[in-house]
Amino acid sequence: MSDRASNTPDFTKGDGLLPAIAQDAQTGDVLMLAWMNAESFAETIATGRAVYFSRSRGRLWRKGEESGHIQEVEEIYIDCDADTILLKVRQTGPACHEGYRSCFFRRRTADGRFETVAQRLVDPATVYKSNRTTPG
Amino acid sequence: MSDRASNTPDFTKGDGLLPAIAQDAQTGDVLMLAWMNAESFAETIATGRAVYFSRSRGRLWRKGEESGHIQEVEEIYIDCDADTILLKVRQTGPACHEGYRSCFFRRRTADGRFETVAQRLVDPATVYKSNRTTPG
Repeated sequence: MSDRASNTPDFTKGDGLLPAIAQDAQTGDVLMLAWMNAESFAETIATGRAVYFSRSRGRLWRKGEESGHIQEVEEIYIDCDADTILLKVRQTGPACHEGYRSCFFRRRTADGRFETVAQRLVDPATVYKSNRTTPG
Repeated sequence: MSDRASNTPDFTKGDGLLPAIAQDAQTGDVLMLAWMNAESFAETIATGRAVYFSRSRGRLWRKGEESGHIQEVEEIYIDCDADTILLKVRQTGPACHEGYRSCFFRRRTADGRFETVAQRLVDPATVYKSNRTTPG
């Protein structure tokens, strides 16, 4: 059984970075997975908008800061071990930096390929300026 | 833009362990997050049942091996960076080792507490033998 004393995300785990799942509050679609540290979690609560920690950039990533595709947070859950966060969000535009509503736009086929099963909402070239790498 | 050449989960990332989200294929509820290595991913595909890698036990974790609460995998998605896996599953009984349908049974309240918002389906004491720690 888990230690339930810490009734909040346990940022002593995962070297201070916990996975955070963003789920569309209306449709239930899983939109993306990103990472949160204590600071990004606190700012998410303070602002009501999803703020992650970008491992590739090594800094806070205010979702939508470049694209405008923000996530307004409706509900926050933690799992039994308090080491995964689930956000139910109201997503503006696509969640994915490739222009899809969800980052999970590729589904495995019976013959073992992953095929794209969603339509792009926007062309990423029109959203991001240049040579952008994923912030995850 | 991501490298799309590797059109399969990229187990060169995350020291070979990628987060895997299990979502209820019927209800859309997010049930749990666990971890997969290449071996557990391959066995998941071969058997059609979710197999994870337990970080705490340091070995494959065939979900339901003790509890009987297996996950039959209906669909597998990968995200844009091929470093997160999404399983749509048919869950037998509770997904959570604490006896809840979903591991995300605690929701943050306006005053900053996390309160339990789900009912236990089973008493964990009747499912697991003794002193069990979470396999995640």
